[in-house]
Amino acid sequence: MSAENLHVGVIGATGAVGVELINVMFDRNFPVGELTLFASERSAGKTVETKYGTKTVALFSVEDAKKCDIVFLAVSGDFAKEYAPHIAEGALVIDNSSAFRLRDDVPLIVPEINGDLAKKAKLIANPNCTTAIAAVALWPLHKAFGLKKVFVSTYQAASGAGQPGMNELREGLASGLKGEEIKAEVFAHPLAFNVIPHIDTFQENGYTREEMKVTWETRKIFGEPDLAVSCTAVRIPTERTHSESIVVETEKAVTPQAARDVLATAKGVKLVDNPEKLEYPMPINATRQYDVEVGRIRTNLIFGDHGLELFVAGDQLLKGAALNAVQIAEASIA
Amino acid sequence: MSAENLHVGVIGATGAVGVELINVMFDRNFPVGELTLFASERSAGKTVETKYGTKTVALFSVEDAKKCDIVFLAVSGDFAKEYAPHIAEGALVIDNSSAFRLRDDVPLIVPEINGDLAKKAKLIANPNCTTAIAAVALWPLHKAFGLKKVFVSTYQAASGAGQPGMNELREGLASGLKGEEIKAEVFAHPLAFNVIPHIDTFQENGYTREEMKVTWETRKIFGEPDLAVSCTAVRIPTERTHSESIVVETEKAVTPQAARDVLATAKGVKLVDNPEKLEYPMPINATRQYDVEVGRIRTNLIFGDHGLELFVAGDQLLKGAALNAVQIAEASIA
Repeated sequence: MSAENLHVGVIGATGAVGVELINVMFDRNFPVGELTLFASERSAGKTVETKYGTKTVALFSVEDAKKCDIVFLAVSGDFAKEYAPHIAEGALVIDNSSAFRLRDDVPLIVPEINGDLAKKAKLIANPNCTTAIAAVALWPLHKAFGLKKVFVSTYQAASGAGQPGMNELREGLASGLKGEEIKAEVFAHPLAFNVIPHIDTFQENGYTREEMKVTWETRKIFGEPDLAVSCTAVRIPTERTHSESIVVETEKAVTPQAARDVLATAKGVKLVDNPEKLEYPMPINATRQYDVEVGRIRTNLIFGDHGLELFVAGDQLLKGAALNAVQIAEASIA
Repeated sequence: MSAENLHVGVIGATGAVGVELINVMFDRNFPVGELTLFASERSAGKTVETKYGTKTVALFSVEDAKKCDIVFLAVSGDFAKEYAPHIAEGALVIDNSSAFRLRDDVPLIVPEINGDLAKKAKLIANPNCTTAIAAVALWPLHKAFGLKKVFVSTYQAASGAGQPGMNELREGLASGLKGEEIKAEVFAHPLAFNVIPHIDTFQENGYTREEMKVTWETRKIFGEPDLAVSCTAVRIPTERTHSESIVVETEKAVTPQAARDVLATAKGVKLVDNPEKLEYPMPINATRQYDVEVGRIRTNLIFGDHGLELFVAGDQLLKGAALNAVQIAEASIA
C-alpha cells in the first residue's frame, strides 16, 4: 500500500474509541488523504467536529467502505462479524472488536511485539484493552527472562464501556455525593463508590470472557500457546486508564534492576519507578499518554529471584484501543 | 474478667474507627456498664453523641485509663507505643495500631482464627485491615486444603486513612466532576478518578509496609511463620470497604465447590458466589456488614486442581478494625 494520501474510513467515529482514533491519526501525522466517517441510518447526515475539520457522517455501505484504503472498525463484534470480511475484499480492515481475534487466519497485533504481521493481512484484529496494556509491559520481560507464569489483577476504568460508561460513572458519582440513588444501566451494578468483579460474560470455568481474553490473546500475540496466564478483571470507579497488578515467575533469574534496564528502553513503555519520589504508575498520569507506565518493580516474595511483582497503567482508549489500531495501520504501510 | 457491667474506655473515640467501635459494642450488646471516652486536651470537654447517649470526652491520663476493665486504642502507633503498656497494668488493652502486632509477647488476634489467645493477655493487637479481611476468608481454606502460596492484590477504600481520607475523596470527586483541581493532603496524590499503588511507607525490598503487613501478620495469625504470601496494596476511589483479588496454591487438591462448601459455614464469612445471578462480593453490599463477602471462586488456571482464584470484600472500618476489636473483647470474657 502506498504510504501517502490514504483514504481512511472510520466506522463508529462518534464513539469513545472512534473519536480517539481520529485524534491519534491526526497527532501522529498518519497519511490521511481522505477521511470518511460511516454510520448507520440513525447517525448518517449528522456533522461531527474533528481535527480534520467538520465532517458529515456518511451512510455505511459495504461498497463505499471497500473503496477506502484502510477501514477502522470501532463498533460491536456482531457488526464486525457480518461486514468486516466483505470490506476486507477491498480495504485493509483493522477491527477493534473481539470477533476475529482468535481466528487462526487473522493476525492479532500489538505493533511493539508482532507488527511485522501487519504487512500481509487484509483483516487485522486489535486486541482487548487490558491485554494490549499488559502485553507491552510483559513482552520485553518475556524476551529477556522468559515468562513461566503470569498472574494479573486489573483495575479497569469506566471507559472500557465507552462514552456511556464514562457518563454513567460521572452521573453516579454526582448522585452518590448528594446521597441519591446511583443508577446502573451500562454496568451490571452501580459503579460509583463500588468495584465490580465482573466484566463481559461469565464462562463455564467461572472466569469472565474479559479474564479469558487476557489468557487467550496474550498467548496468541506472544506466539506462546501454552503460556500460563490467569486474570481477575475488576471494574473500578475511574474514568479512562486501566491499571494492572502483575506477578510473574520467570525462567531465568531476574533482579528488579535488570527488569528496569530492559523496560527503560522498551518500545511503548514508560518506566515510572521511583517510589522514594512517590513516582509509580497511576491513571492521573497515564491518561491521554501513549506509553504504558510500568513501575513498582520488585522481587516477588514467593518466586524469589525468579519472580517479579509490578504495576502498570495505560490509557484504555489509547494503547488499549485507538493508538494500537493506528499503530497497526502504520505498521501496515511501513 | 467478669462479663457484666464492664468499664470500657475508648481512646480516639471521635475518629472513624472509634465511632464504629462504640456502634459495634452497642449493636452486639457488649456488656458495657460504664463508657469513658478519652482524648487529648484539644478535644477533652467536648460532648459526643453516641448510642449510649451524650458523652463528655474526658482528658486522657494513664491513671484514669488503668481504672477501666477494657481500653480500646484507636489512635496512632506512637501513642500506643508510649501508653499502651502502662494502661495494660490495670486494664485489658486492645490496640488498633501496628505498634505491637509483631511483638512475640503480644497476641495478634482475628477471633475466628485464634480467639483463644484473648483470655490470657493484657495487651492484644488488632491486625491490619487488609490482613484481617483476607484472613477470615483464607483460614477455612488453609485448614481444609493447606495454603502453599498466597498472592493478593488489594482495592482499598479511602476509609483506611480515616475520616479525613473519606472527606478528601468526596471533596476530590466533587472538584473533579466540576473540572477543578483535585487536592491531595491526606493521600500522596489525588485519589478521586485515580488509583494509587502506595499505602504506608516503602521498605528496602520495594514493598510498602502495608504490603508487608499482609505477609507478616497473616503468618503470625495463622501460626505459619513460613507461609508464602505476597501482596500489592492499592488505594482506589471508594469509600469504606476493601476488596481483594486472591490467588492461592494449595497442598491438597481442591475444587471450587469444595471451597464453597467450606466457606459456606465458615465464621465471619458470607459466601456470595452466584455469577449467573450477578452476585459476587462488592463494596456496595459489604459496607456496614459484619461478614466478609467471598466469591468469584474458581480453579486458578495456573495451579489447576491445586489452586483457587477468588475475590473478597470486607468493611475496612468493621472487620478491618472496629468489629474485630470488639470481637477480641468478647473473646476475652467468653
